[in-house]
Amino acid sequence: MRNIIIASTSTIHGGESLDYLLEELREFFKNTSEILFIPYARPGGITHDEYTAKVNIAFNKIDKKVIGIHEFNNPKEAIENAKGIFTGGGNTFVLVNQLYRNNLIDIIKTEVKNGTPYLGTSAGSNICGLTMNTTNDMPIVYPPSFKTFGFVPFNINPHYLDPDPTSKHMGETRETRIKEFHKFNTQPVVGIREGSWLEVKGDTITLKGNLDARIFEYNKAPYEIETGSLLSELK
Amino acid sequence: MRNIIIASTSTIHGGESLDYLLEELREFFKNTSEILFIPYARPGGITHDEYTAKVNIAFNKIDKKVIGIHEFNNPKEAIENAKGIFTGGGNTFVLVNQLYRNNLIDIIKTEVKNGTPYLGTSAGSNICGLTMNTTNDMPIVYPPSFKTFGFVPFNINPHYLDPDPTSKHMGETRETRIKEFHKFNTQPVVGIREGSWLEVKGDTITLKGNLDARIFEYNKAPYEIETGSLLSELK
Repeated sequence: MRNIIIASTSTIHGGESLDYLLEELREFFKNTSEILFIPYARPGGITHDEYTAKVNIAFNKIDKKVIGIHEFNNPKEAIENAKGIFTGGGNTFVLVNQLYRNNLIDIIKTEVKNGTPYLGTSAGSNICGLTMNTTNDMPIVYPPSFKTFGFVPFNINPHYLDPDPTSKHMGETRETRIKEFHKFNTQPVVGIREGSWLEVKGDTITLKGNLDARIFEYNKAPYEIETGSLLSELK
Repeated sequence: MRNIIIASTSTIHGGESLDYLLEELREFFKNTSEILFIPYARPGGITHDEYTAKVNIAFNKIDKKVIGIHEFNNPKEAIENAKGIFTGGGNTFVLVNQLYRNNLIDIIKTEVKNGTPYLGTSAGSNICGLTMNTTNDMPIVYPPSFKTFGFVPFNINPHYLDPDPTSKHMGETRETRIKEFHKFNTQPVVGIREGSWLEVKGDTITLKGNLDARIFEYNKAPYEIETGSLLSELK
């Protein structure tokens, strides 16, 4: 049975990395003390080692150890043997590029389908959708494709941000951008606000956390859903 | 002699499309009453016709007529025959994708090198740099390459935005994103604030408008330059 957490962000304002999620993660990863970490998104361009060390500090609080996938000679085998997988945030283009280069997309899809618990935050959540076309990141590298895992039959917009009515900046709001996406694509987009996450258990998808989420469907007005809502029918 | 305007935005807050630039453009396009417009970036997903009509309203104020490149059967010939070219803003991915599909990158490079005046705003400015890797836009389509015109030997970040010290959002600031870009790429990036532009005349590149610009060079601390500064040595 699939078992996935798709979180908007690793860190909420004023908090430490993952602390708002730790109790949830203690239960989520209860069958393993060791989690395979995919540090490919390299936030701020930090190295895989630096990123893994940082994430270890967070997971040590719930007595889990994190091992970076870059520490294995054979990353495919590392995925196959993992009892829990976490893909952290950073730059989605850098992340997806490295996943394709290391030929890991299909094996991760297979293992997560077969029940390996998968946690994603930010960029690591973005790739749970059908494509990375609704990332907020700067395209600092050119990946071979924008297609991602498709654990859910829609796209994710993590760090969803409401328009700022006081802004004098002429760049597009997030909502404008997602509406533009729907001029060229038809799948729904779920905007997840910082502090919320989607829980996927088998075929059941539930919004968790304290905040509403914003749903964008093709040719429909965007709408809000409350925490606890099911998204299993959205596609 | 090359003759290019690379503007951060078409519209400044509270203004009408292009009005802050119109007197500049009257002089810039003085040798033609007809400007070839490239509407491929489709802001908000509007059609090529809708976008061209909108831009015509602005140019009519200085007695110029705009014709959309999509109105020609042979867009390459349209570029060759144009006495002035304007590429408007919108989504850089959509713009670059269409330029590649219509096989127009090389012909525009050639004509602009030979002296056809070129005006870009926003996405239309982004593509004046070496690559589109420093666009702010959402990657709603997958273009065949991120390589762009390279009219200047650096990258452009239009709509450059200073960090908001009051923000509680955990997304990256623009400066953080450009620093990340430099973990994977070495060319400089020029952050142009809304209301400023670069003027390229032959080999001379000058910052124009009322605002400073922010320069990001590989392995250097970012710095500000004043309006009127020359960027001809930046590469």
